[in-house]
Amino acid sequence: MKDFFKVEDLYKALEYASDFSFVDYQQVHLTDSLGRIAAADIFCQDNIPNFSRSTMDGYAVAAASSFGATEACPAYLTVKGTVEMGAQPEFNIKTGEAARISTGGMLPEGTDSVVMIEHVQALDDKTIEVYKSVAPGSNIIEAGEDVGKGEIILSCGQKIRAQEAGMLAAAGVENIRVYKKPVVGIISTGDEVIEVNEKPGPGQIRDINTYTLSSLVLKAGGIPLLFGIVKDSFDDLLKACLTALNKTDMLIISGGSSVGVRDFTLDVFSGLPDSTVLFHGISISPGKPTILAKSNNKALWGLPGHAVSAMIVFEIVVKPFVERMGGYVKKRGVEPSFTATLTRNIASSQGRTDFVRGKLIKKDKILYVEPVLGKSGLISNMVKADVLVKIGKNSEGIEKGAKVRVLPI
Amino acid sequence: MKDFFKVEDLYKALEYASDFSFVDYQQVHLTDSLGRIAAADIFCQDNIPNFSRSTMDGYAVAAASSFGATEACPAYLTVKGTVEMGAQPEFNIKTGEAARISTGGMLPEGTDSVVMIEHVQALDDKTIEVYKSVAPGSNIIEAGEDVGKGEIILSCGQKIRAQEAGMLAAAGVENIRVYKKPVVGIISTGDEVIEVNEKPGPGQIRDINTYTLSSLVLKAGGIPLLFGIVKDSFDDLLKACLTALNKTDMLIISGGSSVGVRDFTLDVFSGLPDSTVLFHGISISPGKPTILAKSNNKALWGLPGHAVSAMIVFEIVVKPFVERMGGYVKKRGVEPSFTATLTRNIASSQGRTDFVRGKLIKKDKILYVEPVLGKSGLISNMVKADVLVKIGKNSEGIEKGAKVRVLPI
Repeated sequence: MKDFFKVEDLYKALEYASDFSFVDYQQVHLTDSLGRIAAADIFCQDNIPNFSRSTMDGYAVAAASSFGATEACPAYLTVKGTVEMGAQPEFNIKTGEAARISTGGMLPEGTDSVVMIEHVQALDDKTIEVYKSVAPGSNIIEAGEDVGKGEIILSCGQKIRAQEAGMLAAAGVENIRVYKKPVVGIISTGDEVIEVNEKPGPGQIRDINTYTLSSLVLKAGGIPLLFGIVKDSFDDLLKACLTALNKTDMLIISGGSSVGVRDFTLDVFSGLPDSTVLFHGISISPGKPTILAKSNNKALWGLPGHAVSAMIVFEIVVKPFVERMGGYVKKRGVEPSFTATLTRNIASSQGRTDFVRGKLIKKDKILYVEPVLGKSGLISNMVKADVLVKIGKNSEGIEKGAKVRVLPI
Repeated sequence: MKDFFKVEDLYKALEYASDFSFVDYQQVHLTDSLGRIAAADIFCQDNIPNFSRSTMDGYAVAAASSFGATEACPAYLTVKGTVEMGAQPEFNIKTGEAARISTGGMLPEGTDSVVMIEHVQALDDKTIEVYKSVAPGSNIIEAGEDVGKGEIILSCGQKIRAQEAGMLAAAGVENIRVYKKPVVGIISTGDEVIEVNEKPGPGQIRDINTYTLSSLVLKAGGIPLLFGIVKDSFDDLLKACLTALNKTDMLIISGGSSVGVRDFTLDVFSGLPDSTVLFHGISISPGKPTILAKSNNKALWGLPGHAVSAMIVFEIVVKPFVERMGGYVKKRGVEPSFTATLTRNIASSQGRTDFVRGKLIKKDKILYVEPVLGKSGLISNMVKADVLVKIGKNSEGIEKGAKVRVLPI
């Protein structure tokens, strides 16, 4: 029997991500920008807003005109006119004067604040009583207060959420330079594996990994490219890899990554042009028989054939590589993390990082995580699971009642 | 000044979601199923797997043949042959015999377990020494152990994740009946609002809400349909609504939802065929001036024009309606929830639910949430924010150091 020749710790395995360079970039329209990764720093060309505007319906005033006003002793102001929306007011306001203004209206010269309509009584067309004093700057947004000219509005490597799209719209950036989505080839291997639309004969099972892995690639921000099922044959697999490598930024082969007589992935990777095997084996469970190789800046993964192991390895190990190649640098820094209380003891082996499938349960407002029992190879266990619980490699397990971090899957 | 005529509590407002029926369904291929909502219960037509298979490389045996075997006193077994992958073995195994088997291979008749290759030494082609006894069922998955014939594999209303896609593949379900994505029309209103590719003159600002809301619709599983900017005019808005309603399941108008002289949304909704206004005003902040109306089972939303308010109302109030119309019933029940420690006091008013924007900070392994200060109308504050912190309507605020639930945005 052969042996794993270069087993890495999980954190070491993840460090290889920086060995791969980013994919190319492209332009996308704002309406297609959600979730994309900016491929350039974008600066604001003008003040946002480029004028002082009201955030309330009411009367624009110089704040001083309202000072001391109360219900008992209102300030009387002369209404000089109405601010037209979307246009510059054609009049100035002096002390003792006011202008009708709607939310979003431009403040007339001479004003620095807005009295809310709720605090005003109109006596006639020309006169109002103001019942409440306002401070300068009240109920307005000043020019450049949202974003100032020259400020950065989007950093290279940042993910575009709805609010970033809104900010770009405000700044007039209709097309954005983003990284292309990494194209990830997917190959399933195994003489026993048949297509999803075939009826399995004795000893045959349908291809699961093509569909779990392509879904996970989509979720990670990549584009899956399916190359189907390849038989357990060095020549067939090599040929499939060469074809796939021409069309992809990354390639994932599930099955054949271990050390048995039918495991050809390592040999095939070694036989590819300009290839280096970075590791064979990761000290995690499930998922030990995982291979990472590099060929012309493309990441080549050999994943276990077990559906569950392949999914977990993708989530924990492969996904950060897809994100990294796609330009995502997680500038925002802190990701929220979920915790839950463990309902029973989980045993683990020292020296490897374990990932246990768990189901969330809520009882008396407390969130619990219950380990999903049963054999690890069952896809039904992943369906029952909501989260993964990570058990560190220096731990022999976690006791019932402990608060653990959980990773939604 | 007009008044809000029917202000609802947040939880009451959300209850209206069940007033709207589900959208129609369609068939999608497995490769397009991620995130879609099943529109039918799907049952397993056959056992998965449909034969007992090995989960290890090794030797298939009757467990009894290995009983008592140790390193010091191995069991000697006769190798009867090799199990071909993807085929039924052509031989039986009796006590004292074994068959070479690879991971995924079909167990020959007479066997009930697999001895791992690591615990075996081959003496010659025909004889092995077994160093460890195995229990019946070891290192195998039995027929139907993953999913049994007739078991449910996907419930109507359930969201399809990668693992559900894998389960469907295993069961040979290549095309799945899912709910269509609800089509959500988006209209921005305001005489001061201009297109993103125009240069704002004095008093003008670019349309933000079209892009924030369309991104949020996508994120919620809907399809945004953009109807552009409509001027503050009853007739223009009514016409735009009638056009949009023909093409959408839901319509969102931002701006004009309050009670000012320029606020036409309520009047327009009231003027639509077969329409009912369900509420006008929600006791939340920001976002009070929110309208929900119903016309021919279509949900009509009037959202505040402020970009931040519109986003928060969408996340908190509109999104559950999009999900509900899209068939999502959250059968899984428990959603993980994030908590973080508040870095400073937040004040709030009783009688309304507040949503404060927060930034996550990690220090000494503790996750903190820091309120983003500044005026609520600034889109830049949403860009700085990672989460929303909810302050219940019976609370006057939350003190520094408290653990609060945070909602990623």
